Amino acid sequence: MFYHDGGKLQYHVKVDKPDPLFAKALQQAIGGIQGEIRVCLQYLFQAWGSRGPAKYRDMLLETGTEEMAHIEMLATAVALNLEGAPLEQEKAANDPIMRATMGGMNIQHAITTCMAAMPVDASGNPFDCSHVYASGNVAADMLSNAMAESTGRMLAVQLFKMTDDKGMKDMLRFLIARDTMHQNQWMAAWEELGGRDNHPIPNNFPQEEELADYNYTFYTTAKDDSVPPPTGRW
Amino acid sequence: MFYHDGGKLQYHVKVDKPDPLFAKALQQAIGGIQGEIRVCLQYLFQAWGSRGPAKYRDMLLETGTEEMAHIEMLATAVALNLEGAPLEQEKAANDPIMRATMGGMNIQHAITTCMAAMPVDASGNPFDCSHVYASGNVAADMLSNAMAESTGRMLAVQLFKMTDDKGMKDMLRFLIARDTMHQNQWMAAWEELGGRDNHPIPNNFPQEEELADYNYTFYTTAKDDSVPPPTGRW
Amino acid sequence: MFYHDGGKLQYHVKVDKPDPLFAKALQQAIGGIQGEIRVCLQYLFQAWGSRGPAKYRDMLLETGTEEMAHIEMLATAVALNLEGAPLEQEKAANDPIMRATMGGMNIQHAITTCMAAMPVDASGNPFDCSHVYASGNVAADMLSNAMAESTGRMLAVQLFKMTDDKGMKDMLRFLIARDTMHQNQWMAAWEELGGRDNHPIPNNFPQEEELADYNYTFYTTAKDDSVPPPTGRW
Amino acid sequence: MFYHDGGKLQYHVKVDKPDPLFAKALQQAIGGIQGEIRVCLQYLFQAWGSRGPAKYRDMLLETGTEEMAHIEMLATAVALNLEGAPLEQEKAANDPIMRATMGGMNIQHAITTCMAAMPVDASGNPFDCSHVYASGNVAADMLSNAMAESTGRMLAVQLFKMTDDKGMKDMLRFLIARDTMHQNQWMAAWEELGGRDNHPIPNNFPQEEELADYNYTFYTTAKDDSVPPPTGRW
Amino acid sequence: MFYHDGGKLQYHVKVDKPDPLFAKALQQAIGGIQGEIRVCLQYLFQAWGSRGPAKYRDMLLETGTEEMAHIEMLATAVALNLEGAPLEQEKAANDPIMRATMGGMNIQHAITTCMAAMPVDASGNPFDCSHVYASGNVAADMLSNAMAESTGRMLAVQLFKMTDDKGMKDMLRFLIARDTMHQNQWMAAWEELGGRDNHPIPNNFPQEEELADYNYTFYTTAKDDSVPPPTGRW
Amino acid sequence: MFYHDGGKLQYHVKVDKPDPLFAKALQQAIGGIQGEIRVCLQYLFQAWGSRGPAKYRDMLLETGTEEMAHIEMLATAVALNLEGAPLEQEKAANDPIMRATMGGMNIQHAITTCMAAMPVDASGNPFDCSHVYASGNVAADMLSNAMAESTGRMLAVQLFKMTDDKGMKDMLRFLIARDTMHQNQWMAAWEELGGRDNHPIPNNFPQEEELADYNYTFYTTAKDDSVPPPTGRW
Ligand SMILES: [Ca+2]
Ligand SMILES: [Ca+2]
Ligand SMILES: [Ca+2]
Ligand SMILES: [Ca+2]
Ligand SMILES: [Ca+2]
Ligand SMILES: [Ca+2]
Repeated sequence: MFYHDGGKLQYHVKVDKPDPLFAKALQQAIGGIQGEIRVCLQYLFQAWGSRGPAKYRDMLLETGTEEMAHIEMLATAVALNLEGAPLEQEKAANDPIMRATMGGMNIQHAITTCMAAMPVDASGNPFDCSHVYASGNVAADMLSNAMAESTGRMLAVQLFKMTDDKGMKDMLRFLIARDTMHQNQWMAAWEELGGRDNHPIPNNFPQEEELADYNYTFYTTAKDDSVPPPTGRW
Repeated sequence: MFYHDGGKLQYHVKVDKPDPLFAKALQQAIGGIQGEIRVCLQYLFQAWGSRGPAKYRDMLLETGTEEMAHIEMLATAVALNLEGAPLEQEKAANDPIMRATMGGMNIQHAITTCMAAMPVDASGNPFDCSHVYASGNVAADMLSNAMAESTGRMLAVQLFKMTDDKGMKDMLRFLIARDTMHQNQWMAAWEELGGRDNHPIPNNFPQEEELADYNYTFYTTAKDDSVPPPTGRW
Repeated sequence: MFYHDGGKLQYHVKVDKPDPLFAKALQQAIGGIQGEIRVCLQYLFQAWGSRGPAKYRDMLLETGTEEMAHIEMLATAVALNLEGAPLEQEKAANDPIMRATMGGMNIQHAITTCMAAMPVDASGNPFDCSHVYASGNVAADMLSNAMAESTGRMLAVQLFKMTDDKGMKDMLRFLIARDTMHQNQWMAAWEELGGRDNHPIPNNFPQEEELADYNYTFYTTAKDDSVPPPTGRW
Repeated sequence: MFYHDGGKLQYHVKVDKPDPLFAKALQQAIGGIQGEIRVCLQYLFQAWGSRGPAKYRDMLLETGTEEMAHIEMLATAVALNLEGAPLEQEKAANDPIMRATMGGMNIQHAITTCMAAMPVDASGNPFDCSHVYASGNVAADMLSNAMAESTGRMLAVQLFKMTDDKGMKDMLRFLIARDTMHQNQWMAAWEELGGRDNHPIPNNFPQEEELADYNYTFYTTAKDDSVPPPTGRW
Repeated sequence: MFYHDGGKLQYHVKVDKPDPLFAKALQQAIGGIQGEIRVCLQYLFQAWGSRGPAKYRDMLLETGTEEMAHIEMLATAVALNLEGAPLEQEKAANDPIMRATMGGMNIQHAITTCMAAMPVDASGNPFDCSHVYASGNVAADMLSNAMAESTGRMLAVQLFKMTDDKGMKDMLRFLIARDTMHQNQWMAAWEELGGRDNHPIPNNFPQEEELADYNYTFYTTAKDDSVPPPTGRW
Repeated sequence: MFYHDGGKLQYHVKVDKPDPLFAKALQQAIGGIQGEIRVCLQYLFQAWGSRGPAKYRDMLLETGTEEMAHIEMLATAVALNLEGAPLEQEKAANDPIMRATMGGMNIQHAITTCMAAMPVDASGNPFDCSHVYASGNVAADMLSNAMAESTGRMLAVQLFKMTDDKGMKDMLRFLIARDTMHQNQWMAAWEELGGRDNHPIPNNFPQEEELADYNYTFYTTAKDDSVPPPTGRW
């Protein structure tokens, strides 16, 4: 089961200049397909469905639980960025920067949650648990997790470039570092499970059952010879 | 932040006679609108967005964290109910009970997760985080939570009636008991916040701004006098 | 069955200064989870599934039908706020207020509906009928309805604060008044059904079947003693 | 605004032999993309957004309101088909017909609604209001409505063939008749608006702005001459 | 099966002055309900499910394949409109036009895809394949296709009016022309199948099974005589 | 742009004994998250958004186009499995195998599409394009593609085990072989791009910006010392 420490953050979260547009962008890191709800539930459901060696299950529990702390940090960051958001038509009517801010923010932050984070992405789409990938094959799942952390780190880097807020940059330095760790961790687990030699996944299907003319042959779908065949190691 | 204890269950989970149809039904308690993912995220997002007295935030953190343990128990129960599920056409072709079981189970349990739980409901709909209600008004949220626990307890009672498996009945006795506790807990918080006297929510809106002809008057939408007016205390 | 009066509004709707940003915000009151489509369908489906005393069913029909009139009023308000919206890049290119308006509006109002309301929320998410809560337990449903009206009234109050348009403020005064009435109405029905004494819902499940060690005990999920136990009436 | 008559059905609904599988199938007519919620909201939103001649808006209001009565009839039919549904594992364990029925029904009818209809389709997908088509062009909308009624009538015919229940067949005879009427009604409106001569929709766009080489020419996407060109009046 | 020509566009795509707001609007033509993914998959699924005369299936394959080329053109147009988009808070802080642009764009274009198109609509809603209408009745499907092309052409015309970019206007001239062709093509197929005489769809259901009192009668749902009956050819 | 060959299948599709339950399961390979629509659109959107070396874009176009042929094959297989499906209550009333088949099939195959495939998964959930992952980083995308093919191959293997139909087994031998090829192809591309040495993705973010105390350190979230630390290469 699970425990909390009364709301202490894993790493401190400060916002120097609140910006509701940045709050909207940060939502992607909470409820986006590369976000923290996704990795949290993905690792935990993989752990709960695990039938393989205990160490993978243990690691999934460890990191799945850490991801909850990341949602918590980001939810805090969203709320802080919403302080003082312009919410009245009258005031914004003639001030173009205020009007642009009012138009650019997720207006649900003002009218649905009273200035708090939601489990949605930067377009306001609620997170949908069909993105919780858990296949029952631990190697496939490790690949899936490494991929999730790769795109999660890309997102955090984009957010880092977008903001010039010292507090936000500091929080993102932390989250990017954790993404580095987790990305490497899942790649290491995948390697330990055989890495490339474990493919094709699932590796317990007898390949003599496959049609041998088709499993190691590149078939072009080019219309005709006018399209040069692609080259590469594949 | 959050912690785990290595996968110990809050209460033991046993299944005497696995039944994939019951596994499908149990999914409602995981990923249904009355399920544990919903209350877990709802209480935590309310906590993270909380701007009111610390004690409500603390309670939300406490119980939100407990709900994770309930997802864990139910995911375990689903996996146990899937043991030995009939997955081959040939075997099921002439045995009507096996055929009915194969047809009645969530076939994704067999082909998508290798016999593990998913964050979906009993119809296979993935949980969608728009059901995470967090309004920023603590009294409204307490009502919302009491309602979620009420329907959650109704669901658990229906599942209890559906099964004759001793292990499953025992697990449900535990979960129903916790639903009782949580339901009462949120009602108590709502009462502490003023209960009926706190309504209409939000209670800081000056009611003289409302149109006084319409806020305490029942208007019938009946077509004509042939429909008798409803009676009651409202 | 149902009837109409040729499109008369329940209360008049005027807009003094159209504002497409406000049109976007108003959409939450139509297609949001606290909006009028939700309460309309929720009350009607509860009525249609009702197996209890006729008076609750009657009231649900009465008010469910009234909610249709609220969708109608809000759809009218959205269309009126879209009059004269800036839709051409060229004109908006150098006028920051116009550019901010063009960027802040729901662009689908211009390119999908020709300046009319849609059954979506303020982020453009289509209303999804999984939010139509109808549990079959009339007390749980009354709580659910009171909650829906509470958050609906909160939304209307936020919209009231956001706008300085006299016509819109007048319409919202009406809708807030009706939310007050409906909120109180469902709370009264819940009280008539036993109120707190009717809990835990469902109240026909023999509580001796619950595990007695768990149904009236608060269990902390705090990591350790460093987290002070929450206090309160629960 | 809208009115009700206290729950009288537009046409009587009887079920001779309840069948929970048929209840599941009937849900498609309530919450499916061809179902009654869709046409109800579609006609009403078209009416509310109407800026053209009043008679189309009037007709949309008339028929949109009638569709509510169809949801009401079908919700009643679903509830009646759920009477006596097998809900206990023990009883169904050894009786293959009962087991097949338990597996084939929408189990949410038992555990989520206590034997009442839901706003979902036959696969349990909640109705999603993105299917409420309202383009602002009355001719396009009439086509859209004729299409919705065509597929709605196809669905009703399939349901008629599926059941041998006298009561259900009678109800479907009524609904199919209304689909005939409505399908013809929207086609007539489309004809009145110019029919084929009104196309291409929208007909107020100056066609000289189109690239003249491409708007009346069929371009094949066949790979090469081995695929014979399609023939027809287009 | 299918083939490509190495990424040649069906018609050239140029953007003179990139505009991320227009990129957001263009997304509707890719992933909106009137967009190219929808018609592409709709025509192909209709073709693959076709059991009628080969020529309709052939035409569906031809045009379904062409629609892929339209997605390709629009995806290219979105990417070109995103060149140079303002992505840094600091720069946008004091420049109202830049701030309005940053707020008005789909921020996921910056943080999720690195300036590329997504299969979403102008509000950022992912395309959902429930909009792929394929009923198995070829006449109903032709009506559905004509409707899809009608609203698709309306959308393209709105986009044409919105932009003053010469390159974009040229691309839209092409797409509008193709919409004209396709719209007429499906109407012609519908006519060939009997047109109005083929209705009511499905036309193989014996109409004597319908209740004869209800299939050619207009029933008003007006509350009373105060609402004048609608007039028209229906 | 794209081309077709008049509907020739990439590999022949035969069904010896139609089975509507297997048709339902096959839908996962069409519209599931591991299915062919997903990989088709994913590869094509990655190609269309590609800003890197042409060869990756070329390969994505090649294989994205091939995946369309797989949807086509599977749609054919679904339709063939639906031949002769039991659709009438009367016939199924007393025959348990027929009743189980009727209950176990996707009833929408009968009442919505007239026995044709839909773009949905095995639970009837429509495919949702948020699963089209395209991050703009080619290495992350290759990982994402390898993962999609891994779980796609797992699915095909489960379907292979489920069926004893000779024709279906043959088709799956082909599809599994292609999954092997594609899985290896994307892994090879990932290796060519640097493989493990390219991580953490994105590799152009200066790692000195990360907080150095957190990016290569494992932090346990275990409650206390009673949980043994996980071991492994990470
Ligand atoms: Ca993280
Ligand atoms: Ca619980
Ligand atoms: Ca209302
Ligand atoms: Ca109807
Ligand atoms: Ca097109
Ligand atoms: Ca494939």
